[in-house]
Amino acid sequence: MTEPASAPADTRPYSPGLEGIVAGETTLSYIDGEAGRLLYRGYPIGELVHAGSYAAIAELLWTGDWKPDARLPCKPVPDAVMTALRALPKGTRPMDALRTAVSVWGAVNDPAWPPTPEQAHALTAFSPSALAAFARIRQGLEPVAPDPDLDLVAGFLYQVNGVRADDATARALDAYFIVGAEHGFNASTFTARVITATRSDIASAVCGAIGAMKGPLHGGAPSEVVEQIHQVGTPDHAEAWVRDAIDRKERLMGFGHRVYRAYDPRAAALREVAEGMEYKPEWLELAIAVEDVALRVLAEKYPDRPLMTNVEYYAAPVLMGVGLTPDLFPATFALARHAGWTAHAIEQGAHNRLIRPDVRYVGYAERHLPQG
Amino acid sequence: MTEPASAPADTRPYSPGLEGIVAGETTLSYIDGEAGRLLYRGYPIGELVHAGSYAAIAELLWTGDWKPDARLPCKPVPDAVMTALRALPKGTRPMDALRTAVSVWGAVNDPAWPPTPEQAHALTAFSPSALAAFARIRQGLEPVAPDPDLDLVAGFLYQVNGVRADDATARALDAYFIVGAEHGFNASTFTARVITATRSDIASAVCGAIGAMKGPLHGGAPSEVVEQIHQVGTPDHAEAWVRDAIDRKERLMGFGHRVYRAYDPRAAALREVAEGMEYKPEWLELAIAVEDVALRVLAEKYPDRPLMTNVEYYAAPVLMGVGLTPDLFPATFALARHAGWTAHAIEQGAHNRLIRPDVRYVGYAERHLPQG
Repeated sequence: MTEPASAPADTRPYSPGLEGIVAGETTLSYIDGEAGRLLYRGYPIGELVHAGSYAAIAELLWTGDWKPDARLPCKPVPDAVMTALRALPKGTRPMDALRTAVSVWGAVNDPAWPPTPEQAHALTAFSPSALAAFARIRQGLEPVAPDPDLDLVAGFLYQVNGVRADDATARALDAYFIVGAEHGFNASTFTARVITATRSDIASAVCGAIGAMKGPLHGGAPSEVVEQIHQVGTPDHAEAWVRDAIDRKERLMGFGHRVYRAYDPRAAALREVAEGMEYKPEWLELAIAVEDVALRVLAEKYPDRPLMTNVEYYAAPVLMGVGLTPDLFPATFALARHAGWTAHAIEQGAHNRLIRPDVRYVGYAERHLPQG
Repeated sequence: MTEPASAPADTRPYSPGLEGIVAGETTLSYIDGEAGRLLYRGYPIGELVHAGSYAAIAELLWTGDWKPDARLPCKPVPDAVMTALRALPKGTRPMDALRTAVSVWGAVNDPAWPPTPEQAHALTAFSPSALAAFARIRQGLEPVAPDPDLDLVAGFLYQVNGVRADDATARALDAYFIVGAEHGFNASTFTARVITATRSDIASAVCGAIGAMKGPLHGGAPSEVVEQIHQVGTPDHAEAWVRDAIDRKERLMGFGHRVYRAYDPRAAALREVAEGMEYKPEWLELAIAVEDVALRVLAEKYPDRPLMTNVEYYAAPVLMGVGLTPDLFPATFALARHAGWTAHAIEQGAHNRLIRPDVRYVGYAERHLPQG
């Protein structure tokens, strides 16, 4: 394996995985991992979760305008999408079903270039209905039509369960959607931008992004946090369980993060919502109790390593607590990230430039086919 | 719009569009734009077109082995895919239909990590059947089941038209599929690698790639070459038409390329196939006549600019000549590129590393929500 003899010496910057290479600019979010800060359009994530709804945060990401009263009710599922979802095997992974639904939505709506806030709104309000429809179809239940009086997150839960969620439950999931809405150039968002940059459409971009988020190196494993909380069982077992796990060198799920050295501001925001609830569900009490013990014991055992709570730690109990099955967690994360993906598609379209890195050839030098 | 006051000065390499940044390594193809050379696994494209079939070239890309007798018959379309295709509006863009078909194929087959040559084979042999089925359904015709005796390209034409193509026609389209199979880190292939790098599946990768190729900055505009050849009409009008177009400063379609300064080796290979035909179809005679005139006149008028024939120049008459309508050209290009996309997915999976560039924040400094 050598380079072809005629190739000149390669002096181009080489960064496999593109680590440390700045591939573009954004005004959408700012991440300060050292200080544990996350801003959307300049506003701290904690303030947004406190004062906003997912509808307002999506509007902020799409347009830059702060409209706390913005609404984003779920939209009905077009017939062609419903037919495609009904045709899927019952055991289809929800991420595959969601990717298919978005692809059919794009075929039906044929969104024009460039991506617009209206397109982002329509697609973001469609996908929860499609995922909820599939979640029911695979159980042999009829899909539930969206209730236009409900905002996106409450409307999603209504379409999954067939009954309205209580306010505290809807509020907890709304907070999860807000903290999951946007996080810079992660792999799925970057995928959406690469696709948009060819002047392709917003549905193609989100389809690709869903495919990227499906990978466990991106989408993560929140169901493992659920498993951990199940194992602890009750708050009074937390201390013993955590010390035992650390002594056995087991990894505590939901602590530590690639970017955040400080407490993940998204986890902090979710915890704040949880603590503010008048009637705290048992699962949140348990999650908070385990976290307090885990942080204390981790700091005691590893004083030099910043192992703080990450967003997955609270994502898992919130998703579990609102009644979603663990195999719906990745697709629900994808619903939340729709606001960010589509906002990046709009931003890419407004200042477009093809995204096309170089590649280094490390294969055979020129050779010839065997004769005859 | 300023950076948050607390952000440190940004000293990271910045390359919007990632131009000139090497994002990874490949053994699949080598492009030498100055000399007009393209190698797949070390073999010159001209030799491959001369000696090989698309089946052999796909096998070469997937496994590295040269098996000139490899076969790749089209596979049947699963029921779930057929149902989804029948549910699409008749006016759906073929690229949207193909993206949807691949998404449903992924849902049905649930291909495991890492991508394998078997998965690549199955997906590449499925997609032509799906596109052909949609091309018939939208005309109100019944899909035609694949003929297992036909190889991929002849089998695709059979499923589009309902009758077997003559050998020369199938050979010309096979040559097009070979030259379209692979071309380094273009935007769609890069998309496939970014998606695969999260440990997502091969169908998600190809779904994203189709979305990227759909954009006109990537997929190109071969139908404009068709229009140009139609305008010329007959070989004896070529000289006058070309001189007139250049005098009016109109752009001649199918000449000049971002990478190739010399004659595009893919165009050369397609021309060679065309010239070798015992009974040359009229459309190829015309394309060759127009090209000869155009190259002579371009060299005369712009002696300092290397405006040579590019692959689109021959792609257009081949696609037109085998009876495909212009709105099927981009999706047919996508079928041809399946071999490369899936080979890149295999290569990425075998040496995996998450692809995740940085982004520069250029939005608001930290600010606070209005109170009340």
